[in-house]
Amino acid sequence: MSDDYLVKPGKKAKLDGRDPADTGGLKDEESARTQLADDIVAIDKLQDRLYAEGKRALLVILQGMDTSGKDGTVRGVFNQTGPLGVTVTAFKRPSEEELAHDFLWRAHLAAPKRGTIGIFNRSHYEDVLVVKVHKLVGAKEVDKRYDQINAFEKILTDNGVTILKFMLHISKKEQRERLQERLDDPKKHWKFNPGDLDDRKLWDDFQDAYETMLERCSTDHAPWRVIPADKKWARNAVIASVVRKTLEDLDPQYPKVTWDPKSFRVE
Amino acid sequence: MSDDYLVKPGKKAKLDGRDPADTGGLKDEESARTQLADDIVAIDKLQDRLYAEGKRALLVILQGMDTSGKDGTVRGVFNQTGPLGVTVTAFKRPSEEELAHDFLWRAHLAAPKRGTIGIFNRSHYEDVLVVKVHKLVGAKEVDKRYDQINAFEKILTDNGVTILKFMLHISKKEQRERLQERLDDPKKHWKFNPGDLDDRKLWDDFQDAYETMLERCSTDHAPWRVIPADKKWARNAVIASVVRKTLEDLDPQYPKVTWDPKSFRVE
Repeated sequence: MSDDYLVKPGKKAKLDGRDPADTGGLKDEESARTQLADDIVAIDKLQDRLYAEGKRALLVILQGMDTSGKDGTVRGVFNQTGPLGVTVTAFKRPSEEELAHDFLWRAHLAAPKRGTIGIFNRSHYEDVLVVKVHKLVGAKEVDKRYDQINAFEKILTDNGVTILKFMLHISKKEQRERLQERLDDPKKHWKFNPGDLDDRKLWDDFQDAYETMLERCSTDHAPWRVIPADKKWARNAVIASVVRKTLEDLDPQYPKVTWDPKSFRVE
Repeated sequence: MSDDYLVKPGKKAKLDGRDPADTGGLKDEESARTQLADDIVAIDKLQDRLYAEGKRALLVILQGMDTSGKDGTVRGVFNQTGPLGVTVTAFKRPSEEELAHDFLWRAHLAAPKRGTIGIFNRSHYEDVLVVKVHKLVGAKEVDKRYDQINAFEKILTDNGVTILKFMLHISKKEQRERLQERLDDPKKHWKFNPGDLDDRKLWDDFQDAYETMLERCSTDHAPWRVIPADKKWARNAVIASVVRKTLEDLDPQYPKVTWDPKSFRVE
């Protein structure tokens, strides 16, 4: 299932041709939830082995338009695996300290330790998305960043970090409903940011920036996946299945010890 | 229930008089598990409100002898609340960078952000425990640290961080069984560190150091609790109930917004 959503390296992502309401071959919400529950238990166990092994790491990058469900994915997929050995980093407007460094500095600082899963809620990709759309740096500078990102991610993967990149793909219509819900439900008011409406007006520019990002930065060492995200249950189920499969392929092992357990006596 | 385990500020902790196998008034394991499951759901919801409110933080400090169950507590109590808004920091042997600063520097760096729960697996208290027992710094220097810790924690509590400090209190006999289990079960070999046996030989010195720490650093603003930890189910249930009660008392609120939801239209 997982490979249906891959952006093949060197190919165009063609977001228009990808249905945000696709359910990934899942029959219905109930069967998706059953599968998700099973995957979550498996991920928890695999994460424990990854932690015990202490040699490799998993980096999960979540990108998507406002309301596309980045927080929801963390809750839905990882709520039962953490916080021991799992860290979430939310990339917000950079601080002066961060702006005083190259744009990848803070991403490197937040890279997961060996043995852990790191989740980026937004990421260094904002520097070729919002930064590009709002023209916060020049076009030439943005253009160089794709290659810099690929080089940065290669450093990580060469050093034992497996990278999973998920773009949460929602439709403009679904975003309207979710933004309206944030205005209608007093419990959700705090999630609403009036600035989100300005970005919504730039929808097409953002989609263009996403397409370029997907095309330029889906690499063999760190490919992008475009996850249909209009249906939350399908989104969670698809992502959990990819995470599980990836961890199963890594097959982390409880480390062998170099000493003889029989040589010790606990007095 | 929670206050039975408090170390009253200014009083001696008298570890000898505290039964590590106490079950906190819980009838049996089954009823403890039922109560724990209920508390975990409540903690998850309260944590979400804390995160939404974004004004205050909770710092949970876990200390205890090897095998006392610090990791197990994180798994048992917080596995369903994180990792969004919950971070765990394991304090290991300090790096050169950390040693180049005062001993509280790395603890301050790891203090939880507003809106989040931070869990310290070991903490700045190692600097008056292992450091004291192994005489890594002079006695006079250690003696000054208790007051410095109290001052540091007061800075945090004055700035909206509620601090819960749990000493996981196990018996020497229970530790033997748990260490032996790590030797007997190949899946647990990686958890066994031959150095643990050396510290076990210094059991009484460690207990003394804990008693002094409890007496000097159980303050009105950040009191210590000594949690009976021979029975894992009792330990988790007691800690979860304290965490829940603490969050309920904080009573975090979804923030009110300063704009009129009706003034926005999602196009």
